[in-house]
Amino acid sequence: MRKMRRKGLASMASQTVVTTPDTVDLGPAAGLSCRECGERFALGPIFACEICFGPLEVAYDFPSGDPEGLRKRIENGPENIWRYAPLLPVPADVASKPNLNPGWTKLVQADNLARELGVEPGKLHVKDDSGNPTHSFKDRVVAQAIEAARAFGFTTLSCSSTGNLAGAVGAAAARAGFRSCVFIPHDLEQGKVVMAAVYGGELVGIEGNYDDVNRFCSELIGDPAGEGWGFVNVNLRPYYGEGSKTLAYEICEQLGWRIPDQIVIPIASGSQLTKIDKGIQELIKLGLVEDRPYKIFGAQAEGCSPVSVAFKAGHDVVRPQKPDTIAKSLAIGNPADGPYVLDICRRTGGAVEDVTDEQIVDAIKLLARTEGIFTETAGGTTLGVAKKLIEAGAIDPSLTTVVINTGDGLKTLDAVAPTAGMSAVIRPNLDSFREAGLA
Amino acid sequence: MRKMRRKGLASMASQTVVTTPDTVDLGPAAGLSCRECGERFALGPIFACEICFGPLEVAYDFPSGDPEGLRKRIENGPENIWRYAPLLPVPADVASKPNLNPGWTKLVQADNLARELGVEPGKLHVKDDSGNPTHSFKDRVVAQAIEAARAFGFTTLSCSSTGNLAGAVGAAAARAGFRSCVFIPHDLEQGKVVMAAVYGGELVGIEGNYDDVNRFCSELIGDPAGEGWGFVNVNLRPYYGEGSKTLAYEICEQLGWRIPDQIVIPIASGSQLTKIDKGIQELIKLGLVEDRPYKIFGAQAEGCSPVSVAFKAGHDVVRPQKPDTIAKSLAIGNPADGPYVLDICRRTGGAVEDVTDEQIVDAIKLLARTEGIFTETAGGTTLGVAKKLIEAGAIDPSLTTVVINTGDGLKTLDAVAPTAGMSAVIRPNLDSFREAGLA
Repeated sequence: MRKMRRKGLASMASQTVVTTPDTVDLGPAAGLSCRECGERFALGPIFACEICFGPLEVAYDFPSGDPEGLRKRIENGPENIWRYAPLLPVPADVASKPNLNPGWTKLVQADNLARELGVEPGKLHVKDDSGNPTHSFKDRVVAQAIEAARAFGFTTLSCSSTGNLAGAVGAAAARAGFRSCVFIPHDLEQGKVVMAAVYGGELVGIEGNYDDVNRFCSELIGDPAGEGWGFVNVNLRPYYGEGSKTLAYEICEQLGWRIPDQIVIPIASGSQLTKIDKGIQELIKLGLVEDRPYKIFGAQAEGCSPVSVAFKAGHDVVRPQKPDTIAKSLAIGNPADGPYVLDICRRTGGAVEDVTDEQIVDAIKLLARTEGIFTETAGGTTLGVAKKLIEAGAIDPSLTTVVINTGDGLKTLDAVAPTAGMSAVIRPNLDSFREAGLA
Repeated sequence: MRKMRRKGLASMASQTVVTTPDTVDLGPAAGLSCRECGERFALGPIFACEICFGPLEVAYDFPSGDPEGLRKRIENGPENIWRYAPLLPVPADVASKPNLNPGWTKLVQADNLARELGVEPGKLHVKDDSGNPTHSFKDRVVAQAIEAARAFGFTTLSCSSTGNLAGAVGAAAARAGFRSCVFIPHDLEQGKVVMAAVYGGELVGIEGNYDDVNRFCSELIGDPAGEGWGFVNVNLRPYYGEGSKTLAYEICEQLGWRIPDQIVIPIASGSQLTKIDKGIQELIKLGLVEDRPYKIFGAQAEGCSPVSVAFKAGHDVVRPQKPDTIAKSLAIGNPADGPYVLDICRRTGGAVEDVTDEQIVDAIKLLARTEGIFTETAGGTTLGVAKKLIEAGAIDPSLTTVVINTGDGLKTLDAVAPTAGMSAVIRPNLDSFREAGLA
């Protein structure tokens, strides 16, 4: 079943490698390995296994034997994701290259929120990735893709996008000195177009929907016209995805090199959730954190809940849905990593849950009202699910919980606009002020 | 002349102090002193001198004699403005209280931008305050006001605002556990209303323009209905303003405890510029940086350039203007600190300059295209002026220059929308792609 679904990808898996493997320096990255059959490949701009069509991921030769030294090295590193360079597919001198240096965002101890949700004081944290350069976690993954693109000799950075990713690629490419050419549906909202176009790269509208945009990108990768082009979420995907590991590293380090008991993570393709689990497993293997139980919870919107539905039904297979939700950045009806998400949530004793659009908006306003953090719809989904799971007893309110906020509310203003307005309009005098009951 | 202008304020200067001075712990803050006549007052929610109506500012008893120890203490402090708690009007344990913890934003070495402007590599930096919690430098000043409000026993936080400040106050109050009530013109754009309302405080539209809003707030402060209300930029203004000093501290520390040769700063009321100068002078007196010459440059929009006009005409007095510019956050036609700005820019050998709205938009796009930083119109003004001064030879391209980016482009999308769109719209196939000349 899984293999059949991936056949479309496999036809592109043998794209010409621009640089030969022995000139590629991506630090501890030793090669690519197939997540299904384990087959190994040299580092290159490939993303699907030639044998079984499974997805490829980065395999590492990690430093070993001196966890204390490694921990010190990280703690003395830069205040961004490059402090973890020894654990990422990037050259050792990555911090000296021009890039946006995302990461090391705040882990906010959310005591006001904890009080409202009945969680013990000091136990609830929000990992606030709206603090990244373009205000979403996408900056983490794009930064990885850029370093791979450099290593492979690509000169143009590209992606298909409906929002956050377009801006993240445009900004990162500008700073890193790449040409960028980003493909979007031609009828995208003007605000999102501006956010992506301002960085000066090519922004190309495709007459069609997001599926048409993706299909076109796949065609371009297989064509000579796509020579020298790095598509961050296609032929650079194995590297790109590794950026999400840094969320796990930062959370554990910020908790004093300790794994939280419970983590709630949004699910779009599911990649972020699987990489956070991978990051935790690496920290354990390297001796940087104590090996202890933790539970991973996945969050979806009811209007696009294929993984949640599969989880609740006890299925291993995820049945695609046609998305209909305000959480547009999570609206992937056929999530590539869905089966892996199911494995991880079941293995760790977590769960996958979904919430309605109304609950998403309520959660956005709850977080703003209690902690002064304005999150986008994806963050509202994640917090909404956390609230639901606490109320249902699935998340233990006496244990440490981290909720991931992947992006900024300024990007999805429309979602809250109908219910966030002025509380009163008055004339400019004290009588009018008193009449309105504000005194 | 100055005194007459301030008479309106002085009538409010004797508002009841909620807490008695000896219970107020604001760390090194020893009292308030009049910037005009030097008269001293006890710490309290007052902002104008009872003797001469001059503006009050915080006076300190700073630690002395051990610069190396102080520097170490700062370097080991939290990664936010509270690392400078020994230099700010806040209690020593401020970092343990609930607040948004702004600051310690990136100082970006802008080599791509330097190349375009003909500045020596490594010499041009952008201090990027869009990385603050609500994405503008206002988080710095509001954080100070909150600590003063706590010290004075206020329970409601308030301000008049047309944008950034409303959101900053709403967010900070939510996190810190204050009620908030913010006053805005009733016809503000919906996006800005949403950004301010989402934090759940009272957001009150006033039927009138921004001047009417301000007049109403002044009335409220003098009325029993305003008892217990802290207006961050009125009766808490002396504390509020000190937040901008942290920009100077951070810039110098991030440059290795060294004063930059040249700093370009936007002018609205002019407070930020004067406080950055104050911060540098403090670092010199405390022995934290070497005493060396530096030049301060002020930036305005042509459509609201009262300080620039006065500077060029050699006047000491600033003649008010009626603002008409896209740089709305800088559109203060009668800037309170204008005369002080003139003093500082002349004393340091700097200048004040202005740019057109078109140059502002060009500068926004220049910064995005070269460094991947999307700034708001205020930042565009500042960079536009920096560019103009470099071209005119007033800023030396061989010396270290820091340009302040006060806020995020997501807040002023409208300014760039007309000129930041798709480069092409194509059908989803390779022929259409080639026809558009994108291959």
